[in-house]
Amino acid sequence: MQNRNGKRFAIGVDYGTNSVRAIIVDVDNGAELASHVFNYPSGEAGILLDPKDPNLARQNPADYIEGFFKSVGGALRAAKGKRGFKPENVIGIGVDTTGSTPIPVDRDGTPLAMKKEFRRNLAAQAWLWKDHTSYAEAAEITAAARKSREGYLAVCGGTYSSEWYWSKILHCKRTAPKVFEAAASFVELADFIPAYLTGNCDPATLKRGICAAGHKAMYHERWGGLPVKLLNSIEPDLVRIAQCYATPAVPSDRKAGGLCEAVAAKVGLPAGIAVAVGAFDAHLGAVGAGIKPGRLVKIIGTSTCDILVSPMNRELPDIPGLCGIVPGSVIPGMYGLEAGQSAVGDIFNWFVRHATPEKYTGKGDAHQNLTREAAKLRPGASGLLALDWNNGNRTVLVDPLLTGLIVGQTLQTTAPETYRALIEATAFGALTIINRLEEYGAKVREVVNCGGIAEKNPMVMQIYADVCNRPMKISSSSQTCALGAAIFGAVVGGAYKRTQDAQAAMIREPSRVYKPDPAAVKTYAELYKLYRVLHDAFGTREFQGNLAHVMKNLIVIRDRARKEGR
Amino acid sequence: MQNRNGKRFAIGVDYGTNSVRAIIVDVDNGAELASHVFNYPSGEAGILLDPKDPNLARQNPADYIEGFFKSVGGALRAAKGKRGFKPENVIGIGVDTTGSTPIPVDRDGTPLAMKKEFRRNLAAQAWLWKDHTSYAEAAEITAAARKSREGYLAVCGGTYSSEWYWSKILHCKRTAPKVFEAAASFVELADFIPAYLTGNCDPATLKRGICAAGHKAMYHERWGGLPVKLLNSIEPDLVRIAQCYATPAVPSDRKAGGLCEAVAAKVGLPAGIAVAVGAFDAHLGAVGAGIKPGRLVKIIGTSTCDILVSPMNRELPDIPGLCGIVPGSVIPGMYGLEAGQSAVGDIFNWFVRHATPEKYTGKGDAHQNLTREAAKLRPGASGLLALDWNNGNRTVLVDPLLTGLIVGQTLQTTAPETYRALIEATAFGALTIINRLEEYGAKVREVVNCGGIAEKNPMVMQIYADVCNRPMKISSSSQTCALGAAIFGAVVGGAYKRTQDAQAAMIREPSRVYKPDPAAVKTYAELYKLYRVLHDAFGTREFQGNLAHVMKNLIVIRDRARKEGR
Repeated sequence: MQNRNGKRFAIGVDYGTNSVRAIIVDVDNGAELASHVFNYPSGEAGILLDPKDPNLARQNPADYIEGFFKSVGGALRAAKGKRGFKPENVIGIGVDTTGSTPIPVDRDGTPLAMKKEFRRNLAAQAWLWKDHTSYAEAAEITAAARKSREGYLAVCGGTYSSEWYWSKILHCKRTAPKVFEAAASFVELADFIPAYLTGNCDPATLKRGICAAGHKAMYHERWGGLPVKLLNSIEPDLVRIAQCYATPAVPSDRKAGGLCEAVAAKVGLPAGIAVAVGAFDAHLGAVGAGIKPGRLVKIIGTSTCDILVSPMNRELPDIPGLCGIVPGSVIPGMYGLEAGQSAVGDIFNWFVRHATPEKYTGKGDAHQNLTREAAKLRPGASGLLALDWNNGNRTVLVDPLLTGLIVGQTLQTTAPETYRALIEATAFGALTIINRLEEYGAKVREVVNCGGIAEKNPMVMQIYADVCNRPMKISSSSQTCALGAAIFGAVVGGAYKRTQDAQAAMIREPSRVYKPDPAAVKTYAELYKLYRVLHDAFGTREFQGNLAHVMKNLIVIRDRARKEGR
Repeated sequence: MQNRNGKRFAIGVDYGTNSVRAIIVDVDNGAELASHVFNYPSGEAGILLDPKDPNLARQNPADYIEGFFKSVGGALRAAKGKRGFKPENVIGIGVDTTGSTPIPVDRDGTPLAMKKEFRRNLAAQAWLWKDHTSYAEAAEITAAARKSREGYLAVCGGTYSSEWYWSKILHCKRTAPKVFEAAASFVELADFIPAYLTGNCDPATLKRGICAAGHKAMYHERWGGLPVKLLNSIEPDLVRIAQCYATPAVPSDRKAGGLCEAVAAKVGLPAGIAVAVGAFDAHLGAVGAGIKPGRLVKIIGTSTCDILVSPMNRELPDIPGLCGIVPGSVIPGMYGLEAGQSAVGDIFNWFVRHATPEKYTGKGDAHQNLTREAAKLRPGASGLLALDWNNGNRTVLVDPLLTGLIVGQTLQTTAPETYRALIEATAFGALTIINRLEEYGAKVREVVNCGGIAEKNPMVMQIYADVCNRPMKISSSSQTCALGAAIFGAVVGGAYKRTQDAQAAMIREPSRVYKPDPAAVKTYAELYKLYRVLHDAFGTREFQGNLAHVMKNLIVIRDRARKEGR
């Protein structure tokens, strides 16, 4: 596979919430040769919505397929002639996607949504990770799992989420029985793409990644794979789905297969190139950010994923509220720990779309305009405090039936003040996750942040540093998810034996660091106490108390901050 | 004073928060002949603000004087020739104003703000009713009054407010001693205008209205007028102000004096016309809306005033949280009861200015655009719940150190949904006041609403009817405050002996009524329970409990409302 000048390349394909990005990297040093982004054409920014139901978020599977050809094709064209690049020097393809995003498919593996009779049926589309329609089913699964002695909940943080595989499938069975009946199985997007690329779409045999299986489908060695007994106790028809599911689920350093003739010819790559088993964007983002024990990687996008890894030679306690602890889901041979916030950038985008006056949206980029004004405010000076639950709370409450809250408005409260309060709320949510990890012995020695917000908004990262009272490092690559995917492309292509070796060669260490400012740290510590009061009062059944001090203390902090700012 | 065709006219001058309006009415039937509005030219919509202190709201006294000539002059020009109108047929002038809006004046009665050395000094301006800078002083006065055995607090609802006379004067003394020293007295705007018109501005002798004195300055017969003993115990220097204050304070059916030559000549009216003692806008608005025992009059503007009267032949208990119970403050010979909400229209205006996207502000009137969309929503369908405390809470909590709160936001929450939630919040606040009145035996048999919002926004009034589960009547006059002022103009001008007789002749009964819709009533009863949880948890020290059901119940109500709406 080695060409004359010795150069070898890997492709990483990163399926995000609104678009798909392909990058081509040099496997020797990880340098990015070319990239191309394709925005999903369907729905609103790629998402099919139901105005009657804010919980619903679906996607058109055809967008994913078109997205592969458009993004990879575009990257190949952009790479042409650069550093002696030739398509035949590509040795492997890695894929990461959002998830849990299950797609109902027929016996041949064709998404039902691509068949005429189901084309306009929302239940036949891909069920995007942030679809929360199945909250009742999630509660039902959680209750059933709690009754069992198997310890199902211990591996997924104590609560099974409405964002996950079985909740969505059960909701489909209950509300769209025709779709459920027509579905031979539900295939995670992370598994669907490698299956499509390798030409093995048969849902009974296509390779299932451990990342999706372990974090979202309750796949675990303790009960021999999928939780068939539990599923049977909830809804016997689910067993049919569980039986059309090849095991064992495997990590991303394993090949899904070789690139099939049809796809290879259409996109302009040699057939047979190694395609890695797929995984979730956050997990491969963590790989691309150089994750290792003690390094928390935060992928800050529309939502946030917080990933840690832990060597498998020591016992790790179950950590309540985490999305899961899965062997090999990030780095093969280590536990992968996943936490996250259900909405971060999505909250800021919602604010810009629905609550920002023309003064900030009329000219230039609204986020930049708001940020410029918000950056002038001292911590606490807005008098505002918010909860970051517009899309529920993933960690540590694991409760989709939570909503946003803002308190402290006067008749002078401005849009930049509210914008900053929402950013601070997400920072408080981030701190709550770090605290939970550390309380259970998962040490967080450093934090590396990736994603557009981390790279482009210094104010957000400074607030995170001040709220968390920790340096916030920024990943050196701007495409860590795609880079993580390319790293596995390089591994399955034979360039490296161990993922860690590929990481060492292909990733530069973070150079940008936001350091906590002691004065801001002090104010945010006060505000965090009030955040926890709201968090516990509205988010837990255990809280008993009075909240009359919340508005008063916010006013005291506000007035002091404004006085100091004069 | 009767002219050839027997027509006689009275002028009502209504000083609002942003503008002053004069109307000329026929004293026989109350028909409005002409009117003219003048917007205060200073500051932001007439209000002097301090960007560093959201509590501060002042006004330029020169705007008031200019406003008299511009508004009355304009009305006189507009009336010229109509139904035989001649200036010499005007028999009296009545005045109402916002309050408590005290103006520091020198020994001659000249506002300090109109003197060169104080012109740019914010403390020398009129302290607008909604100025909350003196919250610490209000708490101090409340604490001192509570310790005393005189029962000072019983006449003002159990708490002395930062919006009121002595709090503001004490704050002036503490924070702007030069202004305090230069001030011979502080004159309420309601007293200042009649004094100016009659040419007696001497603060020691000008007539002080019972409305301002009783509701805001703790004036009461029980302790022989102003609370001198209490003031002395708090700050001896306040006694100096109390001593430069003519007593007894008198109701508005009494003459302040005759229109002085200088003003008469300048505005184009005969000198000597009777000028009534001034009172607050809400109180005269209630008079203009035909207030009588059992009829609650709500004046819905930037804030809301709720006025009841009660015959003096029966004992009325002290009602905690009311702004005051003052003999003769509304109808001479009856108790006047005042309650209110610190912000209503102000909240909607804040929302339009600071939180409404261009989609609704770009074309046409933003309030109309938001209302059109909000009117399509079913009660509960937004999933939102708000507290109406952006400007504190006047009744029943009497606490300026409270702030706004909104809960229930998702990533789909729209501006019209939030707008409606804010309207609903003010309706819940209105219901809380009605409940409090009735709990203490002050029966509310009907509700008559006045003000621009009541007249122009059917959605708001329907929500009020549905939330309060009572018919909401709309005052027949669109200028009830000015009409109430004109009614006293007619009384002091000699057209009627009793205020009630003038009311009977000059007011048409309300004809527009919004009736409660049973289905909406039911949903709002559920939402009001949740509102009370937030109200008590954030607003009282007594609450002990958990709020985890609030978001959950809002979601249940939302999902049901949306399902019903399909």
